[in-house]
Amino acid sequence: MNEDPRSERTRVRREPNRGHYGRDVINGILDTGMVAHVGFVSDNNQPLVIPMLYVRDGDRLLIHGSSAGRLLNTAGDGVNICVTVTIADGLVVARSAFNSSLNYRSVVALGKARAVSEAGAKWDALARLVDRMIPGRWDDCRQPTELEMKATMILEMPINEASAKIRTGGPNDDEEDLALNYWAGVIPFAKHTLDPVPHEKLAASVQLPEYLRRWKKEV
Amino acid sequence: MNEDPRSERTRVRREPNRGHYGRDVINGILDTGMVAHVGFVSDNNQPLVIPMLYVRDGDRLLIHGSSAGRLLNTAGDGVNICVTVTIADGLVVARSAFNSSLNYRSVVALGKARAVSEAGAKWDALARLVDRMIPGRWDDCRQPTELEMKATMILEMPINEASAKIRTGGPNDDEEDLALNYWAGVIPFAKHTLDPVPHEKLAASVQLPEYLRRWKKEV
Repeated sequence: MNEDPRSERTRVRREPNRGHYGRDVINGILDTGMVAHVGFVSDNNQPLVIPMLYVRDGDRLLIHGSSAGRLLNTAGDGVNICVTVTIADGLVVARSAFNSSLNYRSVVALGKARAVSEAGAKWDALARLVDRMIPGRWDDCRQPTELEMKATMILEMPINEASAKIRTGGPNDDEEDLALNYWAGVIPFAKHTLDPVPHEKLAASVQLPEYLRRWKKEV
Repeated sequence: MNEDPRSERTRVRREPNRGHYGRDVINGILDTGMVAHVGFVSDNNQPLVIPMLYVRDGDRLLIHGSSAGRLLNTAGDGVNICVTVTIADGLVVARSAFNSSLNYRSVVALGKARAVSEAGAKWDALARLVDRMIPGRWDDCRQPTELEMKATMILEMPINEASAKIRTGGPNDDEEDLALNYWAGVIPFAKHTLDPVPHEKLAASVQLPEYLRRWKKEV
Protein backbone atom coordinates (compact mmCIF):
# COMPACT_ATOMS: atom_id res chain seq x y z
CA MET A 1 0.00 0.00 0.00
CA ASN A 2 1.13 3.53 -0.64
CA GLU A 3 2.20 5.37 2.48
CA ASP A 4 -0.71 7.72 1.92
CA PRO A 5 -3.42 5.97 -0.04
CA ARG A 6 -5.37 9.16 -0.51
CA SER A 7 -7.22 9.95 -3.67
CA GLU A 8 -9.77 12.49 -4.72
CA ARG A 9 -12.40 9.75 -4.57
CA THR A 10 -11.62 8.73 -1.00
CA ARG A 11 -10.95 12.20 0.40
CA VAL A 12 -13.22 12.86 3.37
CA ARG A 13 -15.31 15.86 2.39
CA ARG A 14 -17.85 16.19 5.19
CA GLU A 15 -16.16 16.96 8.50
CA PRO A 16 -12.69 16.76 6.91
CA ASN A 17 -11.07 17.01 10.35
CA ARG A 18 -12.33 13.45 10.92
CA GLY A 19 -10.42 12.13 7.91
CA HIS A 20 -7.32 9.99 8.27
CA TYR A 21 -5.11 8.69 5.52
CA GLY A 22 -2.20 7.01 7.30
CA ARG A 23 -1.80 3.31 6.68
CA ASP A 24 -1.48 2.54 10.39
CA VAL A 25 -4.85 4.06 11.17
CA ILE A 26 -6.50 2.39 8.18
CA ASN A 27 -4.92 -0.99 8.92
CA GLY A 28 -5.86 -0.74 12.59
CA ILE A 29 -9.54 -0.33 11.76
CA LEU A 30 -9.47 -3.03 9.09
CA ASP A 31 -7.83 -5.45 11.53
CA THR A 32 -10.38 -4.72 14.24
CA GLY A 33 -13.46 -5.28 12.12
CA MET A 34 -14.82 -8.54 10.84
CA VAL A 35 -17.77 -7.81 8.57
CA ALA A 36 -17.28 -5.54 5.57
CA HIS A 37 -20.08 -4.02 3.56
CA VAL A 38 -19.06 -4.58 -0.04
CA GLY A 39 -20.67 -2.41 -2.68
CA PHE A 40 -20.76 -3.08 -6.38
CA VAL A 41 -22.79 -1.99 -9.35
CA SER A 42 -25.24 -4.45 -10.79
CA ASP A 43 -27.27 -4.26 -13.98
CA ASN A 44 -29.13 -1.04 -14.74
CA ASN A 45 -26.71 1.01 -12.66
CA GLN A 46 -28.15 -0.43 -9.45
CA PRO A 47 -25.81 -0.35 -6.44
CA LEU A 48 -25.83 -3.44 -4.23
CA VAL A 49 -24.28 -3.70 -0.77
CA ILE A 50 -23.64 -7.13 0.73
CA PRO A 51 -22.12 -7.92 4.14
CA MET A 52 -19.11 -10.21 3.82
CA LEU A 53 -16.41 -11.62 6.07
CA TYR A 54 -12.95 -10.31 5.30
CA VAL A 55 -9.43 -10.05 6.60
CA ARG A 56 -6.49 -7.84 5.75
CA ASP A 57 -3.45 -9.67 4.40
CA GLY A 58 -0.68 -7.09 4.10
CA ASP A 59 -1.62 -4.71 1.32
CA ARG A 60 -4.69 -6.58 0.18
CA LEU A 61 -8.10 -7.46 1.48
CA LEU A 62 -9.27 -11.05 1.27
CA ILE A 63 -13.03 -11.29 1.14
CA HIS A 64 -14.97 -14.48 1.69
CA GLY A 65 -17.40 -14.47 -1.12
CA SER A 66 -20.01 -17.17 -0.88
CA SER A 67 -22.36 -14.26 -1.34
CA ALA A 68 -20.15 -12.90 -4.07
CA GLY A 69 -21.57 -15.00 -6.84
CA ARG A 70 -23.78 -12.19 -8.00
CA LEU A 71 -20.90 -9.77 -7.78
CA LEU A 72 -18.56 -11.80 -9.90
CA ASN A 73 -21.20 -12.72 -12.40
CA THR A 74 -21.36 -9.10 -13.31
CA ALA A 75 -17.85 -8.98 -14.71
CA GLY A 76 -15.12 -11.30 -15.86
CA ASP A 77 -11.75 -10.18 -14.67
CA GLY A 78 -11.87 -7.37 -12.17
CA VAL A 79 -14.85 -5.50 -10.90
CA ASN A 80 -14.96 -2.11 -9.17
CA ILE A 81 -16.00 -2.50 -5.58
CA CYS A 82 -16.12 -0.40 -2.45
CA VAL A 83 -15.29 -2.08 0.84
CA THR A 84 -16.54 -0.25 3.91
CA VAL A 85 -15.84 -1.31 7.48
CA THR A 86 -17.55 0.52 10.33
CA ILE A 87 -17.17 0.10 14.07
CA ALA A 88 -19.71 2.05 16.10
CA ASP A 89 -18.26 3.18 19.43
CA GLY A 90 -20.90 5.28 21.12
CA LEU A 91 -23.95 7.45 20.91
CA VAL A 92 -23.08 11.13 21.23
CA VAL A 93 -25.95 12.92 22.94
CA ALA A 94 -25.64 16.69 22.52
CA ARG A 95 -27.89 19.26 24.14
CA SER A 96 -28.93 20.25 20.63
CA ALA A 97 -30.39 17.72 18.21
CA PHE A 98 -28.11 19.20 15.55
CA ASN A 99 -24.86 18.37 17.33
CA SER A 100 -25.87 14.87 18.36
CA SER A 101 -23.79 12.29 16.62
CA LEU A 102 -22.13 8.90 16.71
CA ASN A 103 -18.62 7.95 17.73
CA TYR A 104 -17.27 5.52 15.19
CA ARG A 105 -14.30 4.34 13.21
CA SER A 106 -14.73 3.54 9.54
CA VAL A 107 -12.66 2.78 6.47
CA VAL A 108 -13.74 3.16 2.86
CA ALA A 109 -11.49 1.36 0.39
CA LEU A 110 -11.97 1.40 -3.36
CA GLY A 111 -10.47 -0.95 -5.88
CA LYS A 112 -10.84 -3.70 -8.40
CA ALA A 113 -11.67 -7.07 -6.92
CA ARG A 114 -10.84 -10.31 -8.61
CA ALA A 115 -11.43 -13.90 -7.62
CA VAL A 116 -8.38 -15.80 -6.44
CA SER A 117 -8.54 -18.78 -8.79
CA GLU A 118 -5.16 -20.51 -9.12
CA ALA A 119 -5.33 -23.53 -6.82
CA GLY A 120 -2.21 -22.88 -4.74
CA ALA A 121 -2.89 -19.17 -4.33
CA LYS A 122 -6.48 -19.92 -3.40
CA TRP A 123 -5.44 -22.44 -0.75
CA ASP A 124 -3.01 -19.92 0.73
CA ALA A 125 -5.62 -17.17 0.66
CA LEU A 126 -8.16 -19.35 2.44
CA ALA A 127 -5.61 -20.36 5.06
CA ARG A 128 -4.86 -16.71 5.71
CA LEU A 129 -8.51 -15.81 5.78
CA VAL A 130 -9.27 -18.47 8.39
CA ASP A 131 -6.16 -17.79 10.43
CA ARG A 132 -6.55 -14.02 10.55
CA MET A 133 -10.21 -14.38 11.37
CA ILE A 134 -9.53 -16.94 14.10
CA PRO A 135 -5.79 -17.07 14.83
CA GLY A 136 -4.78 -20.67 15.43
CA ARG A 137 -7.79 -22.26 13.76
CA TRP A 138 -6.40 -23.29 10.38
CA ASP A 139 -4.14 -25.94 11.92
CA ASP A 140 -6.92 -27.05 14.25
CA CYS A 141 -9.82 -27.78 11.90
CA ARG A 142 -10.71 -30.15 9.12
CA GLN A 143 -9.22 -28.44 6.10
CA PRO A 144 -11.13 -28.20 2.83
CA THR A 145 -11.53 -30.95 0.29
CA GLU A 146 -11.03 -30.28 -3.40
CA LEU A 147 -14.78 -30.09 -3.87
CA GLU A 148 -15.14 -27.61 -1.02
CA MET A 149 -12.36 -25.48 -2.50
CA LYS A 150 -14.32 -25.35 -5.76
CA ALA A 151 -17.39 -24.19 -3.88
CA THR A 152 -15.42 -21.49 -2.08
CA MET A 153 -14.95 -18.06 -3.56
CA ILE A 154 -12.30 -15.68 -2.33
CA LEU A 155 -11.96 -12.17 -3.62
CA GLU A 156 -8.83 -10.12 -3.31
CA MET A 157 -8.57 -6.37 -3.58
CA PRO A 158 -5.39 -4.34 -3.26
CA ILE A 159 -5.61 -1.59 -0.65
CA ASN A 160 -4.25 1.40 -2.48
CA GLU A 161 -7.10 3.85 -2.38
CA ALA A 162 -8.57 4.19 1.07
CA SER A 163 -9.45 6.61 3.82
CA ALA A 164 -10.53 6.34 7.42
CA LYS A 165 -13.03 8.49 9.24
CA ILE A 166 -13.06 8.63 13.01
CA ARG A 167 -15.16 10.49 15.54
CA THR A 168 -14.27 10.34 19.22
CA GLY A 169 -15.04 12.34 22.32
CA GLY A 170 -18.04 14.08 23.75
CA PRO A 171 -20.67 16.28 22.16
CA ASN A 172 -19.60 19.52 20.51
CA ASP A 173 -22.42 21.70 21.72
CA ASP A 174 -22.42 25.38 20.90
CA GLU A 175 -21.10 27.55 23.72
CA GLU A 176 -24.50 29.13 24.28
CA ASP A 177 -26.14 25.70 24.68
CA LEU A 178 -23.88 24.51 27.49
CA ALA A 179 -26.08 25.87 30.26
CA LEU A 180 -29.27 24.29 28.89
CA ASN A 181 -31.09 21.85 31.05
CA TYR A 182 -30.66 18.83 28.76
CA TRP A 183 -28.45 15.87 29.51
CA ALA A 184 -25.38 15.65 27.29
CA GLY A 185 -22.64 13.08 27.03
CA VAL A 186 -21.76 9.80 25.45
CA ILE A 187 -23.32 6.36 25.81
CA PRO A 188 -20.42 4.05 24.94
CA PHE A 189 -21.07 0.75 23.19
CA ALA A 190 -19.44 -2.42 24.42
CA LYS A 191 -19.08 -5.42 22.21
CA HIS A 192 -17.77 -8.61 23.60
CA THR A 193 -18.26 -12.33 23.32
CA LEU A 194 -20.34 -14.49 25.60
CA ASP A 195 -19.29 -17.93 26.74
CA PRO A 196 -18.79 -20.25 23.77
CA VAL A 197 -21.69 -22.66 23.26
CA PRO A 198 -20.42 -26.12 22.29
CA HIS A 199 -22.19 -28.02 19.53
CA GLU A 200 -24.68 -30.53 20.95
CA LYS A 201 -22.81 -33.41 19.37
CA LEU A 202 -19.36 -32.31 20.46
CA ALA A 203 -17.44 -35.22 21.93
CA ALA A 204 -16.96 -34.73 25.66
CA SER A 205 -13.22 -35.14 25.25
CA VAL A 206 -12.89 -32.01 23.07
CA GLN A 207 -11.92 -29.03 25.18
CA LEU A 208 -12.33 -25.41 24.14
CA PRO A 209 -8.89 -24.47 22.80
CA GLU A 210 -7.09 -21.47 24.25
CA TYR A 211 -7.11 -19.56 20.94
CA LEU A 212 -10.94 -19.65 20.94
CA ARG A 213 -11.14 -18.68 24.57
CA ARG A 214 -9.10 -15.58 23.74
CA TRP A 215 -10.86 -14.83 20.46
CA LYS A 216 -12.02 -11.25 20.01
CA LYS A 217 -13.28 -9.20 17.09
CA GLU A 218 -15.47 -6.16 16.81
CA VAL A 219 -18.57 -6.66 14.82
CA MET B 1 -44.84 -1.65 1.93
CA ASN B 2 -46.13 -4.60 -0.04
CA GLU B 3 -46.91 -7.61 2.08
CA ASP B 4 -44.09 -9.43 0.29
CA PRO B 5 -41.55 -6.93 -0.98
CA ARG B 6 -39.74 -9.58 -2.96
CA SER B 7 -38.20 -8.88 -6.32
CA GLU B 8 -35.82 -10.67 -8.59
CA ARG B 9 -33.14 -8.20 -7.53
CA THR B 10 -33.55 -8.82 -3.83
CA ARG B 11 -34.16 -12.56 -3.99
CA VAL B 12 -31.60 -14.36 -1.80
CA ARG B 13 -29.67 -16.61 -4.17
CA ARG B 14 -26.89 -18.04 -2.04
CA GLU B 15 -28.26 -20.19 0.76
CA PRO B 16 -31.86 -19.39 -0.25
CA ASN B 17 -33.14 -21.12 2.89
CA ARG B 18 -31.76 -18.13 4.79
CA GLY B 19 -33.93 -15.69 2.85
CA HIS B 20 -36.96 -13.99 4.38
CA TYR B 21 -39.41 -11.69 2.68
CA GLY B 22 -42.08 -11.00 5.28
CA ARG B 23 -42.47 -7.41 6.34
CA ASP B 24 -42.39 -8.31 10.04
CA VAL B 25 -38.99 -9.94 9.75
CA ILE B 26 -37.62 -7.11 7.64
CA ASN B 27 -39.04 -4.40 9.90
CA GLY B 28 -37.75 -6.17 12.99
CA ILE B 29 -34.19 -6.11 11.73
CA LEU B 30 -34.46 -2.53 10.48
CA ASP B 31 -35.80 -1.41 13.86
CA THR B 32 -33.01 -3.17 15.75
CA GLY B 33 -30.13 -1.68 13.79
CA MET B 34 -28.85 1.85 13.89
CA VAL B 35 -26.15 2.22 11.25
CA ALA B 36 -26.97 1.43 7.63
CA HIS B 37 -24.43 0.99 4.90
CA VAL B 38 -25.77 2.99 2.01
CA GLY B 39 -24.48 2.19 -1.45
CA PHE B 40 -24.74 4.40 -4.48
CA VAL B 41 -23.05 4.73 -7.82
CA SER B 42 -20.69 7.62 -8.31
CA ASP B 43 -19.00 8.85 -11.45
CA ASN B 44 -17.31 6.31 -13.69
CA ASN B 45 -19.55 3.52 -12.47
CA GLN B 46 -17.77 3.49 -9.10
CA PRO B 47 -19.78 2.06 -6.20
CA LEU B 48 -19.49 3.91 -2.89
CA VAL B 49 -20.68 2.63 0.46
CA ILE B 50 -21.10 5.08 3.34
CA PRO B 51 -22.24 4.31 6.90
CA MET B 52 -25.23 6.44 7.88
CA LEU B 53 -27.66 6.69 10.78
CA TYR B 54 -31.20 5.75 9.86
CA VAL B 55 -34.60 4.89 11.26
CA ARG B 56 -37.66 3.19 9.83
CA ASP B 57 -40.76 5.33 9.70
CA GLY B 58 -43.62 3.09 8.60
CA ASP B 59 -42.98 2.13 4.99
CA ARG B 60 -40.01 4.39 4.47
CA LEU B 61 -36.46 4.69 5.67
CA LEU B 62 -35.25 8.06 6.91
CA ILE B 63 -31.52 8.42 6.53
CA HIS B 64 -29.47 11.10 8.20
CA GLY B 65 -27.31 12.35 5.43
CA SER B 66 -24.63 14.74 6.55
CA SER B 67 -22.40 12.35 4.66
CA ALA B 68 -24.90 12.24 1.84
CA GLY B 69 -23.70 15.36 0.11
CA ARG B 70 -21.67 13.34 -2.33
CA LEU B 71 -24.58 11.02 -2.90
CA LEU B 72 -27.06 13.72 -3.73
CA ASN B 73 -24.63 15.64 -5.84
CA THR B 74 -24.68 12.74 -8.23
CA ALA B 75 -28.33 13.18 -9.16
CA GLY B 76 -31.09 15.71 -8.95
CA ASP B 77 -34.36 14.12 -8.05
CA GLY B 78 -34.08 10.53 -6.99
CA VAL B 79 -31.02 8.37 -6.93
CA ASN B 80 -30.81 4.58 -6.84
CA ILE B 81 -29.41 3.42 -3.56
CA CYS B 82 -29.03 0.19 -1.65
CA VAL B 83 -29.50 0.29 2.11
CA THR B 84 -27.99 -2.65 3.96
CA VAL B 85 -28.32 -3.24 7.68
CA THR B 86 -26.37 -6.07 9.30
CA ILE B 87 -26.37 -7.29 12.87
CA ALA B 88 -23.69 -9.88 13.62
CA ASP B 89 -24.82 -12.35 16.28
CA GLY B 90 -22.09 -14.92 16.65
CA LEU B 91 -19.12 -16.73 15.22
CA VAL B 92 -20.04 -20.21 14.02
CA VAL B 93 -17.06 -22.49 14.51
CA ALA B 94 -17.49 -25.74 12.56
CA ARG B 95 -15.16 -28.71 12.69
CA SER B 96 -14.49 -28.07 9.02
CA ALA B 97 -13.22 -24.73 7.77
CA PHE B 98 -15.77 -24.98 4.98
CA ASN B 99 -18.81 -25.05 7.26
CA SER B 100 -17.63 -22.30 9.57
CA SER B 101 -19.82 -19.27 9.31
CA LEU B 102 -21.38 -16.28 11.00
CA ASN B 103 -24.75 -15.93 12.67
CA TYR B 104 -26.29 -12.68 11.56
CA ARG B 105 -29.42 -10.83 10.57
CA SER B 106 -29.34 -8.53 7.57
CA VAL B 107 -31.67 -6.58 5.34
CA VAL B 108 -30.96 -5.36 1.83
CA ALA B 109 -33.40 -2.72 0.60
CA LEU B 110 -33.29 -1.15 -2.83
CA GLY B 111 -34.98 2.01 -3.94
CA LYS B 112 -34.80 5.57 -5.08
CA ALA B 113 -33.75 8.02 -2.39
CA ARG B 114 -34.69 11.65 -2.43
CA ALA B 115 -33.92 14.48 -0.07
CA VAL B 116 -36.79 15.62 2.12
CA SER B 117 -36.79 19.33 1.25
CA GLU B 118 -40.17 20.94 2.04
CA ALA B 119 -39.71 22.69 5.38
CA GLY B 120 -42.62 21.13 7.28
CA ALA B 121 -41.97 17.63 5.98
CA LYS B 122 -38.29 18.00 6.80
CA TRP B 123 -39.01 19.13 10.34
CA ASP B 124 -41.34 16.15 10.84
CA ALA B 125 -38.80 13.77 9.33
CA LEU B 126 -36.05 15.04 11.62
CA ALA B 127 -38.31 14.77 14.66
CA ARG B 128 -39.08 11.16 13.76
CA LEU B 129 -35.45 10.42 13.07
CA VAL B 130 -34.37 11.72 16.47
CA ASP B 131 -37.28 10.16 18.33
CA ARG B 132 -36.98 6.71 16.79
CA MET B 133 -33.24 6.77 17.31
CA ILE B 134 -33.59 7.90 20.93
CA PRO B 135 -37.23 7.60 22.00
CA GLY B 136 -38.11 10.60 24.18
CA ARG B 137 -35.25 12.81 23.06
CA TRP B 138 -36.95 15.16 20.61
CA ASP B 139 -38.98 16.83 23.34
CA ASP B 140 -35.97 16.93 25.64
CA CYS B 141 -33.31 18.64 23.56
CA ARG B 142 -32.63 21.99 21.99
CA GLN B 143 -34.47 21.70 18.69
CA PRO B 144 -32.87 22.94 15.47
CA THR B 145 -32.66 26.52 14.31
CA GLU B 146 -33.54 27.47 10.77
CA LEU B 147 -29.86 27.58 9.90
CA GLU B 148 -29.27 24.13 11.36
CA MET B 149 -32.23 22.77 9.41
CA LYS B 150 -30.62 24.09 6.23
CA ALA B 151 -27.40 22.31 7.10
CA THR B 152 -29.23 19.04 7.76
CA MET B 153 -29.91 16.59 5.01
CA ILE B 154 -32.49 13.85 5.36
CA LEU B 155 -33.03 11.22 2.74
CA GLU B 156 -36.15 9.15 2.44
CA MET B 157 -36.52 5.89 0.61
CA PRO B 158 -39.70 3.84 0.35
CA ILE B 159 -39.28 0.25 1.50
CA ASN B 160 -40.88 -1.69 -1.29
CA GLU B 161 -38.09 -3.89 -2.54
CA ALA B 162 -36.30 -5.64 0.29
CA SER B 163 -35.21 -8.99 1.63
CA ALA B 164 -33.77 -10.26 4.87
CA LYS B 165 -31.15 -12.92 5.35
CA ILE B 166 -30.73 -14.65 8.68
CA ARG B 167 -28.45 -17.36 9.95
CA THR B 168 -28.98 -18.80 13.40
CA GLY B 169 -27.96 -21.93 15.26
CA GLY B 170 -24.88 -24.07 15.51
CA PRO B 171 -22.46 -25.31 12.90
CA ASN B 172 -23.75 -27.56 10.12
CA ASP B 173 -20.89 -29.99 10.01
CA ASP B 174 -21.06 -32.97 7.68
CA GLU B 175 -22.14 -36.17 9.43
CA GLU B 176 -18.72 -37.76 8.92
CA ASP B 177 -16.99 -34.80 10.58
CA LEU B 178 -18.92 -34.98 13.84
CA ALA B 179 -16.50 -37.34 15.52
CA LEU B 180 -13.43 -35.27 14.66
CA ASN B 181 -11.34 -33.93 17.47
CA TYR B 182 -11.93 -30.23 16.75
CA TRP B 183 -13.99 -27.92 18.92
CA ALA B 184 -17.26 -26.83 17.32
CA GLY B 185 -19.96 -24.47 18.46
CA VAL B 186 -20.92 -20.84 18.52
CA ILE B 187 -19.25 -17.85 20.14
CA PRO B 188 -22.17 -15.44 20.64
CA PHE B 189 -21.63 -11.70 20.42
CA ALA B 190 -23.06 -9.42 23.05
CA LYS B 191 -23.57 -5.77 22.36
CA HIS B 192 -24.67 -3.50 25.09
CA THR B 193 -24.12 -0.02 26.38
CA LEU B 194 -21.78 1.02 29.14
CA ASP B 195 -22.64 3.61 31.75
CA PRO B 196 -23.36 6.97 30.12
CA VAL B 197 -20.48 9.43 30.41
CA PRO B 198 -21.76 12.95 31.14
CA HIS B 199 -20.23 15.88 29.30
CA GLU B 200 -17.55 17.58 31.40
CA LYS B 201 -19.49 20.82 31.38
CA LEU B 202 -22.84 19.29 32.24
CA ALA B 203 -24.55 21.23 35.00
CA ALA B 204 -24.65 19.17 38.18
CA SER B 205 -28.42 19.65 38.35
CA VAL B 206 -29.04 17.76 35.10
CA GLN B 207 -29.86 14.14 35.78
CA LEU B 208 -29.63 11.32 33.27
CA PRO B 209 -33.21 10.96 32.01
CA GLU B 210 -34.92 7.60 32.21
CA TYR B 211 -35.25 7.30 28.41
CA LEU B 212 -31.47 7.47 28.06
CA ARG B 213 -30.92 5.03 30.90
CA ARG B 214 -33.10 2.53 29.04
CA TRP B 215 -31.69 3.30 25.59
CA LYS B 216 -30.66 0.29 23.57
CA LYS B 217 -29.74 -0.30 19.94
CA GLU B 218 -27.65 -2.88 18.17
CA VAL B 219 -24.74 -1.52 16.30
